[in-house]
Amino acid sequence: MSEHVFKQFDLDLEAIRTHILEMGGLVEQQLARAIEAFGNGNRELMQQVIAGDQKVNRMEVDIDAECTRLIAKRAPAAGDLRLVIAISRIVTDLERMGDKAVKIAKMSTKLYETQRLHLPRLAEVRHCGELSLTLLRKTLDALARMDAVAARTVIGEDAVVDEEFNAILRQLITYMMEDPRTISEALDIIWIAKALERVGDHATNIAESVVYVVSGTDIRHSGAGTASDAA
Amino acid sequence: MSEHVFKQFDLDLEAIRTHILEMGGLVEQQLARAIEAFGNGNRELMQQVIAGDQKVNRMEVDIDAECTRLIAKRAPAAGDLRLVIAISRIVTDLERMGDKAVKIAKMSTKLYETQRLHLPRLAEVRHCGELSLTLLRKTLDALARMDAVAARTVIGEDAVVDEEFNAILRQLITYMMEDPRTISEALDIIWIAKALERVGDHATNIAESVVYVVSGTDIRHSGAGTASDAA
Repeated sequence: MSEHVFKQFDLDLEAIRTHILEMGGLVEQQLARAIEAFGNGNRELMQQVIAGDQKVNRMEVDIDAECTRLIAKRAPAAGDLRLVIAISRIVTDLERMGDKAVKIAKMSTKLYETQRLHLPRLAEVRHCGELSLTLLRKTLDALARMDAVAARTVIGEDAVVDEEFNAILRQLITYMMEDPRTISEALDIIWIAKALERVGDHATNIAESVVYVVSGTDIRHSGAGTASDAA
Repeated sequence: MSEHVFKQFDLDLEAIRTHILEMGGLVEQQLARAIEAFGNGNRELMQQVIAGDQKVNRMEVDIDAECTRLIAKRAPAAGDLRLVIAISRIVTDLERMGDKAVKIAKMSTKLYETQRLHLPRLAEVRHCGELSLTLLRKTLDALARMDAVAARTVIGEDAVVDEEFNAILRQLITYMMEDPRTISEALDIIWIAKALERVGDHATNIAESVVYVVSGTDIRHSGAGTASDAA
């Protein structure tokens, strides 16, 4: 590539990197708001999360189009191509995380609207939410710095979210058995906890993509890096 | 491109297309076996599904590597690049469908091993399984023929699977309320139904990728083609 083309490629790539980190920030905000709203019943916040999903979706489509354009125009080789392909995958995982935030907001709306709360507000679910959010933040940090070591740490920590999810599930089953009137409400909370558990899986996927970019190794399904399917 | 390079590109692309259809066939088999085993309690079949996932995972990594190599080597333009990028996305969806087959096999193993079956064998779940399987088959057919019209049909039909899932959920809640001893078992069946519902979502994603390849339009989040998050 001539120096001019080379510089243009770097500029395009930098723009895409900026956009994906912006998208990551937006998804982090969506998730934080959804968890907060589940905890305090703030309907306005729930509505904001549901409305905010449109922007997340648009960013997915836009960044994907940017990636395809960049590959078509500049024909990047080796490391650069790996990066662009990884970004395209990461965008999908971020969008799915955004869907989980919406899921939590919708289920919270249902919980607070249609039912008297029979169950305690489940500090464990909020704790699971904090764990997922921390995992997402660490993942975005590893992505911003393209830090494979930090990414591998995230992959290991997802197991904690899975354990928390399973503990919540056991607890809710106990509540349901003791008082069948709580069944419907407990199920709604299970869907919220499940959404949080899935956020952890998507964080793992993104971390695996970071390792792929840095080291060139595809570590999916290698044992260390497999998103476990809890429950 | 010279004629020689052009031919080589076509051969490489044809190889990738063959591999992804092979992978689709394998995932279809995995899902069919998982649904059958849930229905008849065949433990050996459940084990086969769980063991078979390794092959699905390997195919994902291999085909993805083929796609990256093809882009790096041949720098395809326009339609061809779209196809390769779409294949890379489709591979991810197929692998996730394979995970759902494993989930169904594992949950079925748990159901038949650790618990006496209090619940009827739920013909509705098997019916939902048939619907998901049919959707997967239609999707693979649309993919093999690169048929955008058939793909759009799949996208519409996913709503039927979602409805079926919601009906199963309501039915299981009724059972749980009537007899709290069924709660744990009912939850396991809910995870199976949820896995089937997710298969429909992934079929929708693949169908959207087919439309993208054929028409060049990204129809994700356009309303017609959004994988709904049931429950």
